[in-house]
Amino acid sequence: MYAIGIDFGTLSGRAVLIDTRDGREIASAVYDYPHGVIDDVLPDSGRKLPPDWALQHPQDYLDTLVNTIPAAVRKSGIDPKDIVGIGIDFTASSPLPVKRDGTPLCFLPEFRDEPHAYVKLWKHHASQPQADLINETARRMGETWLMRYGGKISSEWFFSKLLQILQEAPNVYREMDQFVESADWIIWQMTGVETRNTCTAGYKALVQDGQFPSKAYFAALDPDFADVVETKIGTTEFAQLGDKAGELTPEIAAKVGLRPGIAVAVANVDAHVAAPAVKATDPGVMVMIMGTSTCHIMSGTQVQNVDGMCGVVKGGIIPGLYGYEAGQSGVGDIFAWFVDHAVPPEYHAAAQAAGLGLHEYLEREAAKQVVGEHGLIALDWWNGNRSTLVDADLTGMMVGMTLATRAPDIYRALIEATAFGTRVIIEAFEDRGVAVNELVAAGGLPEKNALLRQIYSDVTGRSFKLAGSAQAPALGSAMHAAVAAGVYPNIQTAADKMGKLKDEVVTPIAANQKVYDRLYADYKTLYDYFGRGANDVMKRLKQIKREARA
Amino acid sequence: MYAIGIDFGTLSGRAVLIDTRDGREIASAVYDYPHGVIDDVLPDSGRKLPPDWALQHPQDYLDTLVNTIPAAVRKSGIDPKDIVGIGIDFTASSPLPVKRDGTPLCFLPEFRDEPHAYVKLWKHHASQPQADLINETARRMGETWLMRYGGKISSEWFFSKLLQILQEAPNVYREMDQFVESADWIIWQMTGVETRNTCTAGYKALVQDGQFPSKAYFAALDPDFADVVETKIGTTEFAQLGDKAGELTPEIAAKVGLRPGIAVAVANVDAHVAAPAVKATDPGVMVMIMGTSTCHIMSGTQVQNVDGMCGVVKGGIIPGLYGYEAGQSGVGDIFAWFVDHAVPPEYHAAAQAAGLGLHEYLEREAAKQVVGEHGLIALDWWNGNRSTLVDADLTGMMVGMTLATRAPDIYRALIEATAFGTRVIIEAFEDRGVAVNELVAAGGLPEKNALLRQIYSDVTGRSFKLAGSAQAPALGSAMHAAVAAGVYPNIQTAADKMGKLKDEVVTPIAANQKVYDRLYADYKTLYDYFGRGANDVMKRLKQIKREARA
Repeated sequence: MYAIGIDFGTLSGRAVLIDTRDGREIASAVYDYPHGVIDDVLPDSGRKLPPDWALQHPQDYLDTLVNTIPAAVRKSGIDPKDIVGIGIDFTASSPLPVKRDGTPLCFLPEFRDEPHAYVKLWKHHASQPQADLINETARRMGETWLMRYGGKISSEWFFSKLLQILQEAPNVYREMDQFVESADWIIWQMTGVETRNTCTAGYKALVQDGQFPSKAYFAALDPDFADVVETKIGTTEFAQLGDKAGELTPEIAAKVGLRPGIAVAVANVDAHVAAPAVKATDPGVMVMIMGTSTCHIMSGTQVQNVDGMCGVVKGGIIPGLYGYEAGQSGVGDIFAWFVDHAVPPEYHAAAQAAGLGLHEYLEREAAKQVVGEHGLIALDWWNGNRSTLVDADLTGMMVGMTLATRAPDIYRALIEATAFGTRVIIEAFEDRGVAVNELVAAGGLPEKNALLRQIYSDVTGRSFKLAGSAQAPALGSAMHAAVAAGVYPNIQTAADKMGKLKDEVVTPIAANQKVYDRLYADYKTLYDYFGRGANDVMKRLKQIKREARA
Repeated sequence: MYAIGIDFGTLSGRAVLIDTRDGREIASAVYDYPHGVIDDVLPDSGRKLPPDWALQHPQDYLDTLVNTIPAAVRKSGIDPKDIVGIGIDFTASSPLPVKRDGTPLCFLPEFRDEPHAYVKLWKHHASQPQADLINETARRMGETWLMRYGGKISSEWFFSKLLQILQEAPNVYREMDQFVESADWIIWQMTGVETRNTCTAGYKALVQDGQFPSKAYFAALDPDFADVVETKIGTTEFAQLGDKAGELTPEIAAKVGLRPGIAVAVANVDAHVAAPAVKATDPGVMVMIMGTSTCHIMSGTQVQNVDGMCGVVKGGIIPGLYGYEAGQSGVGDIFAWFVDHAVPPEYHAAAQAAGLGLHEYLEREAAKQVVGEHGLIALDWWNGNRSTLVDADLTGMMVGMTLATRAPDIYRALIEATAFGTRVIIEAFEDRGVAVNELVAAGGLPEKNALLRQIYSDVTGRSFKLAGSAQAPALGSAMHAAVAAGVYPNIQTAADKMGKLKDEVVTPIAANQKVYDRLYADYKTLYDYFGRGANDVMKRLKQIKREARA
C-alpha cells in the first residue's frame, strides 16, 4: 500500500509517493507556482504592492494537486488503487479570506484588484504594526498565553494578518466569511470537510488549551475585532494530527486520478511534520530543519514557558506530547550572503579550478583549520534573532579581524556563529527543564556540509544525525496519511516503520569542545551585551538608517 | 639657489631638487634598495631569520646618494654650483651597530652572517620582550618620562632593539662602539661629523629635557646595560632641526657631483619633516601623514602628557615648540585588505567596465550614500591600536550587517572608522588642553579619495587641507637644508616661502556632522568597551589563536 505526501512550499508544491511498509520514496513530482511569491505587483491588474508585502494565489495550490499527483503516480508505475491516503503540509501562517463555501475572495472579480483578498504568505511582514499592538495589549492585560510564545507574537502570524485586513481593508474583512490557513483550506477543497489543525491553530493562531484568546482581549485590540472568533474563524473544533480530515471527493479524485473516498489526513506545518519523518517522536530529540533559516522542533512531556521560544503547543507535533518550536532567522542565508557578496575573485577562481562550488571550496579550506585558529567570533543576526531574543531589529556583528583574515576564516566563523546560536536555544530549553539529548537535521545545508555537522556537534556537545530522506516534510505528510488511512494505529508506529535517518552519527570531539566552550563563553557575553539592552547600538544604527533613507 | 631633500623610505630613497625661493620641485630621482626589507633570509649566506624580524643593509643608503643626486641634477639641467645644501629624512627608529669610525658591523666579514649586525628597520618587532621589560621596569620605578610616550614604549624603538642585541648577541653588543640611527649615520657619512638629531633622540631614544633615562634605570633592565649611554651612544649633544650638521665632504661631493663644503642639515624623521612642508609650523595644525597607517604630527606651546600618544618632544618638529606625535596603526592597509580580500567579482567587473580602479569605484558608489544609510559601525583595529589605547593585540570589529549589506557599505564604514579613530586622538589632545584647529593631510590616500576628505572633515568638525607636494618629506628635508645653508633664518620662514598646500579646503557639512556625532557616540562606546578592559574578547581570541597555531 502507498500514501501520497504533498509538501506545499514557498515557491512550489511537491507530491511524493511513499511505500507505507518502509517509507521508501517511489516517485515524486514538483509544480512551480506560476504566480510564485507576489511581492511586487498584483497579477492581472499590475497594481503595485507596498514594501514588506508577500502574497500568493490559491489557484496555484489547486493546480499543484492536478499537476503533481497524476505525474508522480504515472512515474511510479503502480496501480493508483493501491494508494490509500493523502497527507499534506504547508508553510504557515499563510491564511486567506474566503466565502462560506470556501471560495477565495481573490477568485471573485470584484476583489481581483484587492491585495488583501489574496493569501498572505508566511513572510508577509506588513502586519508589524498589528503585531506590535497584539503584543502591547497582551502584556498590558497580562494574557497568560503570551508566555507560551516566548513573550512575543510575530507579524507573520494569523491574527496580525487578520487585524491588518480589518484596519486597512474593512470591506474585505466584512465580505469574508472566514479567514483560513491555506493548509486547512486545501484539505477543505479536497474533502469538502472543514477542519482546523491543531498545529497551525496552536503555533500561529494563539490557541492554547483548546481556547483562543478572550473576547475582551480581541475587543481591546479593536472594538470591531471583539467577535472575530465567532464571525471569521469557522470551525473551532481542533483536529489532531494523524486524524482523518475527510475523504477525497469524487470531483478531485477524478482530476488527480485517485480513488474517491480515500483518507485525507488533517493538515500539518512543513517544519513540524518533519519530526516523525526522522523518527523524532520521543521527547529530547531536537529536529532542525535547516535552510535559509533554521526551525527547531522538539517534543516534551510537560509544558514549560521557555524564554524566547516560538511556541509550545499540546499535540502540536505529536499527539499527546507538548510540541516546542524555536528558530534562527538567519542560517543558510547568512552563508549565501557571504558567498555572494564578500568573497574575492581568487576564491571563485580556485573553486572553479578545483571543480567545486564556492560553498564547497570554502568549506574544504575552512575544514583544514584547527578550532580557534581564525581568531573570529560573529553574532549570527544578519536577519535578526528569532529565538531567544525575538528581535528582528538585531543585526550582524563580527570581531577579531586582522589584516591576515581571509574568506575561509570568515566562512567558518559564520557557521560557528549559527552553531553557537543553536546552543543558546538548547540552553534556554534545558534551563527550563526541557531536555535536549540529540540533534537531527533535515535539509540540503546540513546534508552537503560535513564541516557544519561536526561544528554543530562540537559546539553543542550533542550527537548529530541527518534525515534519511531529502523530502522529509513530504515523507512526514505521507506518514500522517498512512495513519489517517488506518495502516498504522498512531504516528509513533508509522515513524518507527517509515521514518528515515542516515547511518552517519557525528559525535563531539573532546578537544574541539574544550576550545568551543571558551569561544562560546565569549559569544554569550557578546550575545547578552548586544542583545539584551546593555548596548542598543544595533537598534540605533537601524534607526539612523531609516532616517537616512527617509 | 637650490636645495636637495632626500627621503629615505622603507623600500627606496628619493632625492628631490627644490628651488629654495618658492619650494618648486625641479627634478627628482628614486633608487630602489637592492636588499629591500630583509625579513626572510640574510643576504649572501641565506641564513634564515626568525619571525618578526625586519632588517636593512646600510650599503643601500650610501648607494641611494650616488644613484639619486646626480640623476636628479642631470634631469633638472641646473648648474650644480647653485645647490647650496642637502637635507635628509629617514624612517625611524632604524638603528645600526657601528665601529668608532662609523663602519657598520655588517660590513665586516666576521659579522656578515650575524643578523644583529644589520640595520634593525623600524618595523622589526622581534624586540617585543625587551619592550615589555622596558615598560614594566619604567612603571615599577615610576619613571616620569614614560608618560611623555603615552605610557608605553614600542618594540620598534631604539632601546628595545639595542637591549635585544645585548641579550641575544652579546658579542655584537661588545664589538659595536656605537648604536646609531641610520638617519644620523648617513649624515655622519656625508659630513664626517657625528650628530644626534633631536627628533629621533626624543621620539625613539627616550631623551626628555636633554637627558636619557638614568643609569639606575638602565641597570635595572640588565646590569650590563647600566653604562649603555656612556659606552654605546656616541655623542650626547643633541642637534636642533634646521641646524647645519656639517659640510659635504670632498669624497662624497665628488661621488655625487656637488660642490664640497655645502651645508648638510641635521637629520630628521620622515613623518615629522612633513610638517613644515605643509606650512604647519604653528600650534594647532594637525598634520596627518596617511598611507598604510597614519602618523599625526602637531606642535604645541606646552608639554602635556596626552593619553596614549606616541610622544611629545621639545623641538621634535619645530625648534622652540613641543612636537606631538600620535598614530593609527591601520588606515590604508585596512582599505587595501578589504579591496583585496572581501570584494566579490561583480564589483571588480563593474570597476573595470567603468574604467576605474576598485578603490575608486567603491569610493564612487559609497559617495552616493547619505550618512548613516549603510547602518554599520567598525572599530579600525585590524592592525591594533597605536593611539590612544597603545595596544597591538586589539583587532577589528564591525556591527550592523544585514543580508542587504554590500561592498560599498563596508568600504564606507571602514573609512568612517578611521575618521572616528582620528577624532578620538583629537579629543585626547584637546582633553589635555592641546588645541587641534585644523587637519592637513599628506599622502596618496587622501589625495586620491575625495570621499575620505569629506568624511574626515565631517567626523572631526575640522577643515581639511591637502599637502601641495606629493613628496612632502623630501620637500621638508630641502627646507631644512635651506635653513642650514642660511637661505632662511629659521624653518618657519622657510615654510612660509617653500611650504605647499593645495587650494582646496574641505569644510564640515552641518547635516553630516549631526549624524556623525550620533555614530561617533556609538563608536566611542564600543571603543571603550572593547579597548579598555570591559570585554577583553579580542585578547582572548588572539590567545586562542596562538594556542591553536602552536
